[in-house]
Amino acid sequence: MNTTTRQAVGRPSDAQLRDAIDGHLRTIANTVRHQQLQEAVTHAALQGGKRIRPLLALRCCALAGSDPMVALPAGCGFELIHAFSLVHDDLPALDDDEMRRGLPTVHKAFGESIGILCGDLLQSLAFETIASSPHPMEVLLELSRATNAMIEGQAWDTDGGFPEGLDEAERLELIHRNKTGALIRGAARAGAIAGGADDSTLDCVDRWSSAVGLMFQVVDDLLDETQSSEHLGKAAGKDREAGKLTFPGVHGLEGARKTVIRLEDVANEALAGFSEVAAPLRDLTHDLAKRTR
Amino acid sequence: MNTTTRQAVGRPSDAQLRDAIDGHLRTIANTVRHQQLQEAVTHAALQGGKRIRPLLALRCCALAGSDPMVALPAGCGFELIHAFSLVHDDLPALDDDEMRRGLPTVHKAFGESIGILCGDLLQSLAFETIASSPHPMEVLLELSRATNAMIEGQAWDTDGGFPEGLDEAERLELIHRNKTGALIRGAARAGAIAGGADDSTLDCVDRWSSAVGLMFQVVDDLLDETQSSEHLGKAAGKDREAGKLTFPGVHGLEGARKTVIRLEDVANEALAGFSEVAAPLRDLTHDLAKRTR
Repeated sequence: MNTTTRQAVGRPSDAQLRDAIDGHLRTIANTVRHQQLQEAVTHAALQGGKRIRPLLALRCCALAGSDPMVALPAGCGFELIHAFSLVHDDLPALDDDEMRRGLPTVHKAFGESIGILCGDLLQSLAFETIASSPHPMEVLLELSRATNAMIEGQAWDTDGGFPEGLDEAERLELIHRNKTGALIRGAARAGAIAGGADDSTLDCVDRWSSAVGLMFQVVDDLLDETQSSEHLGKAAGKDREAGKLTFPGVHGLEGARKTVIRLEDVANEALAGFSEVAAPLRDLTHDLAKRTR
Repeated sequence: MNTTTRQAVGRPSDAQLRDAIDGHLRTIANTVRHQQLQEAVTHAALQGGKRIRPLLALRCCALAGSDPMVALPAGCGFELIHAFSLVHDDLPALDDDEMRRGLPTVHKAFGESIGILCGDLLQSLAFETIASSPHPMEVLLELSRATNAMIEGQAWDTDGGFPEGLDEAERLELIHRNKTGALIRGAARAGAIAGGADDSTLDCVDRWSSAVGLMFQVVDDLLDETQSSEHLGKAAGKDREAGKLTFPGVHGLEGARKTVIRLEDVANEALAGFSEVAAPLRDLTHDLAKRTR
């Protein structure tokens, strides 16, 4: 089946969904009254970025049989949390990055105090946003627990302090499943929940997004290792040089590539029972895996 | 009427409520898996502090005719946001404080990266907590909007960037109503909402807590100006020395004291229609005002 027939009549394209997502994010950013904070929030949430998390939320909402736009508040909630995590991760006391998406990081552009407050505000705006979602309490639990996990993952990545008895590979997976995987899984689950998913659909979404969430970070590690800074829009090879645990560092380049193939299989299997409505999720899985080949 | 008769049969004391609040906060802190983050969250949320915000929430819940314990999740949500705001305000890039409540600040005790992540996690824990409140969506809006306002107030306090046309007194009130007032007002409103308050009760709670929320910061400014560091458990006179707008700085000591008296009147008037159930709120207003005499 080719791309033309796959784009079913009436199914919005990724570009159309991204326009809706950016419109929603802009409305949220415009509620900020403090001038510099409003500019910083706009810089962090709307300049560059692929909107993967809200796109997943909207596609999983459709998988549950609902209009994808129903998941806009939930999806944008996860995107704002993602933006907050990047702003704080870039701070001097954490990853100390000066460039992000080809632009100065928020603390470089606006100063460190606004950098801290901008991340804080992105988080509270995320939670405000989901109040208008269907099934708001379930979405609130998905968003808050994924955020807790993301922050703990960042702490394991930056400060160690692992539970006892974990070997290097287990520590690596603990970091990645929490730091990156939790928000991707949470966004997919929250989108499905907003769309009224039944237990069986939610279980499939959970398995698919757990695999893709981990794959996401393995791919990121691989690209960090193999691509130039210019191509990435940020410093390359930095994580490995900083002595951080990475998939290629622990499993080798070939081992990391094999992990991507294994996770792609798990992800596709989770979607096996779905018809064409799952095509955008299958494409996303494939496109993500393809980046490492 | 003396204190003995005022302590009506069956009405829990502040100490009893604080025990319940601390028990709830401890349960939340114990859900954190990362060892150092768990210690930092416990340090920030449970070492010292008066639990004013959750106490207000519980007392306003009772004012609405409900068991005060019904407001534990909402009250603790506001206390966790308060704790997060202190941890981030103390960071080197913001107020750069080394002592808080007579102990080292979180970033001094645990390092700056854990300081940032601990504040972030206190915020997401706050939002997770309120999922178990009655009327959760209304409480979510109170908590998120008060948090937005608190962060913007902090930005005005630290980085300026005021709306055009405000004189010094108006700038000062903008800072204080947002930085300190919003969480106090929000906690009181959320407690009343959790208790099922009708519109008229919520309106009284709103007027009382708006006055008390501003009074709180005026009293804090007065104490910062007139008391020793040892008595305060933090550096005294620091805000004025840093060139920040304070009530005594803008209105003089006498002007600030008169503002306290005026706000006490507004607060008492808002509670005029209530019987003995409002006694703890009247006591709190009185005790707060008394600290400046």
